Amino acid sequence: MRTRPLKVALLGCGVVGSEVARIMTTHADDLAQRIGAPVELAGVAVRRPSKVREGIDPALVTTDATALVKRGDIDVVVEVIGGIEPARSLITAAFEHGASVVSANKALLAQDGAALHAAAEEHGRDLYYEAAVAGAIPLIRPLRESLAGDKVNRVLGIVNGTTNFILDKMDSTGAGYQEALDEATALGYAEADPTADVEGFDAAAKAAILAGIAFHTRARLDDVYREGMTEVTAADFRSAKEMGCTIKLLAICERSKDGASVTARVHPAMIPLTHPLASVRGAYNAVFVESDAAGQLMFYGPGAGGAPTASAVLGDLVAVCRNRLNGATGPGESAYAALPVSPMGEVVTRYHISLDVADKPGVLAQVATVFAEHGVSIDTVRQQGKDGEASLVVVTHRASDASLSGTVEALRKLDTVRGVASIMRVEGE
Amino acid sequence: MRTRPLKVALLGCGVVGSEVARIMTTHADDLAQRIGAPVELAGVAVRRPSKVREGIDPALVTTDATALVKRGDIDVVVEVIGGIEPARSLITAAFEHGASVVSANKALLAQDGAALHAAAEEHGRDLYYEAAVAGAIPLIRPLRESLAGDKVNRVLGIVNGTTNFILDKMDSTGAGYQEALDEATALGYAEADPTADVEGFDAAAKAAILAGIAFHTRARLDDVYREGMTEVTAADFRSAKEMGCTIKLLAICERSKDGASVTARVHPAMIPLTHPLASVRGAYNAVFVESDAAGQLMFYGPGAGGAPTASAVLGDLVAVCRNRLNGATGPGESAYAALPVSPMGEVVTRYHISLDVADKPGVLAQVATVFAEHGVSIDTVRQQGKDGEASLVVVTHRASDASLSGTVEALRKLDTVRGVASIMRVEGE
Repeated sequence: MRTRPLKVALLGCGVVGSEVARIMTTHADDLAQRIGAPVELAGVAVRRPSKVREGIDPALVTTDATALVKRGDIDVVVEVIGGIEPARSLITAAFEHGASVVSANKALLAQDGAALHAAAEEHGRDLYYEAAVAGAIPLIRPLRESLAGDKVNRVLGIVNGTTNFILDKMDSTGAGYQEALDEATALGYAEADPTADVEGFDAAAKAAILAGIAFHTRARLDDVYREGMTEVTAADFRSAKEMGCTIKLLAICERSKDGASVTARVHPAMIPLTHPLASVRGAYNAVFVESDAAGQLMFYGPGAGGAPTASAVLGDLVAVCRNRLNGATGPGESAYAALPVSPMGEVVTRYHISLDVADKPGVLAQVATVFAEHGVSIDTVRQQGKDGEASLVVVTHRASDASLSGTVEALRKLDTVRGVASIMRVEGE
Repeated sequence: MRTRPLKVALLGCGVVGSEVARIMTTHADDLAQRIGAPVELAGVAVRRPSKVREGIDPALVTTDATALVKRGDIDVVVEVIGGIEPARSLITAAFEHGASVVSANKALLAQDGAALHAAAEEHGRDLYYEAAVAGAIPLIRPLRESLAGDKVNRVLGIVNGTTNFILDKMDSTGAGYQEALDEATALGYAEADPTADVEGFDAAAKAAILAGIAFHTRARLDDVYREGMTEVTAADFRSAKEMGCTIKLLAICERSKDGASVTARVHPAMIPLTHPLASVRGAYNAVFVESDAAGQLMFYGPGAGGAPTASAVLGDLVAVCRNRLNGATGPGESAYAALPVSPMGEVVTRYHISLDVADKPGVLAQVATVFAEHGVSIDTVRQQGKDGEASLVVVTHRASDASLSGTVEALRKLDTVRGVASIMRVEGE
């Protein structure tokens, strides 16, 4: 075994960074054996240098992250700051100064993945980011290595623990969105400003990364259709139960039927209780992958948290260090397929629509005519009358999102339709 | 991209081999892009050369596997023959003649993994075998790469599809073992001679491989305690249901509490219906991995079949070809921890024991005394009387297998105990 250590610069020492530093210390011997050389924490860039950090030599702590990555003797930079800047500049500088990079930064990868991969390749270095999607769950590596000989057609997953906690709570207690969110906040599962989670931005970034890897194509955050889950109601859960379903916030990346394009989207959806994703509880994540040869695979585990995310970071660190000792690099960006990412209108799925309608004869015929005119075939309709008003619950066969939108627009114009109470996609069947 | 192709020799062209050959042809462009060079099927060794093999150039077919691996121009040998010989000699010869090897051979890896890894290392070549455990499910790569920075404490899984099909059938229909086996045979899930599956040999080989990788130690088939599932009865399933459990044939690899040793075992066990493994249906496989930092992960998918196994083989093929172009090798054997594999007696778990006893006063006290004398603490006891006979169902707290064996031996000697109807371990709590 080589005795000269590989030098690691750690950017960020919060929940994840401190765990990475801790495990690097407590498991130093194991890491050395698995890599073939010791790894040394050569510097830790932080914003608040005065904070006491147990187990970290204060002499290693600096506020000058730029100087750290430019030192020239750093083998691997571990970036766990998050956000676009300064992370992007630091990673780019790391490559320019000869380091490989392990990152957990989903937002940055979803926005600038292509440029970062290009910089890594230009300098013959690695860019690994298993921790950016679904925390500790090995997903990036299986997709880009284990399934490298297969053709992935669909990735369908719960990739945000906060929203899964909230939806699971609504499902199991009948609570409304706000009540469930309050509990998630109190328990530390939701941040003070939960926007990134509940509006689906976090999941959308992960969907962009997954679509890119799964389909060997480039997908950016802007390519991902995004709908949050703040408008999911207790009534929606009651409707879902009547259908034998529950509601999850799903990230869905699909190859089109003809294989010529892909789509990526994040939205709440009903899924059958018999689907393995339906039983993913609390803040856990799980991702279904469907491919030509392997069939259906599922990967399940904790999607966030300091230690789980650190596990993913350290797995990448070992791989990147091994590559370095081998004088090689791992798989880089694979975007050769260069498939176009189609807009949401081209997505084909099923829909559950609740309408408030006038309780008089002929309404159902009117509504059914509108669906037919837009080429949306109805699977089931359920009518319920109440005090001169009535509700109609329509579940459709598979139709394009554009056809469904057209249908809903036309329904709203009918005198007899008082309102569209909810529209929810039905997935996983 | 390099234009000179990498040459692949395929040993075996049965259910898996023919799928590997097919995908190598139909997905040749994708594979070339992902590897960075084209791959060419340079030879196919078979036993029956006269059989028509659609899509395979007859000029490539040979019965002389030895000559094929010794040709000297082969970059990768794909071994999907199975069994110990001639696979072992062929793989060894492949390394000696400069080829890397992708194998799906669990029996061989479990018996001679160390020697094969040593041969690969000696010649600077790769030995990959994702397909050897749990078919298409990425498991070997996540364990040896994604979790390389973590400490795995437990691997608990359903790794044999045939037995899971049979047990699932018994669970859902109340059928006995023989009836369920007959159905599995009729549907092609069980072979004409099902011994390797139902007696747990197949699962034990996989357990040996998983224990070795998970604990960075050497484990061979002989180190794995093995109990088949041929004696599981419909009555056992009824008992399991009363406990809120089902029965699965589990492969379990565990680090001891003090971390100084490991155990590996295969046997039927009750697991709670709330455990994710309980809902693994039909011939699917699923493996739970528990580690220090990542927590609980689960990997789920088809555990066998031509196309799924080929998916795993081809993922390895891409990796090995990439390594070859890089002039590098992937992770080899990691056995530095060299932990001893303890015998079954040291395994600590819970037990469900059904006793047929005389229906008279004092029996429960006698039985309870025997448990106490052997240091096995009782969690619950349930007594049922029937026609002068009675049954006692005892569920214990955690105890060592040796203590439990001692207890059962002593129970058998009691006049009042007419028989020990069943003993089953309770896992996954």
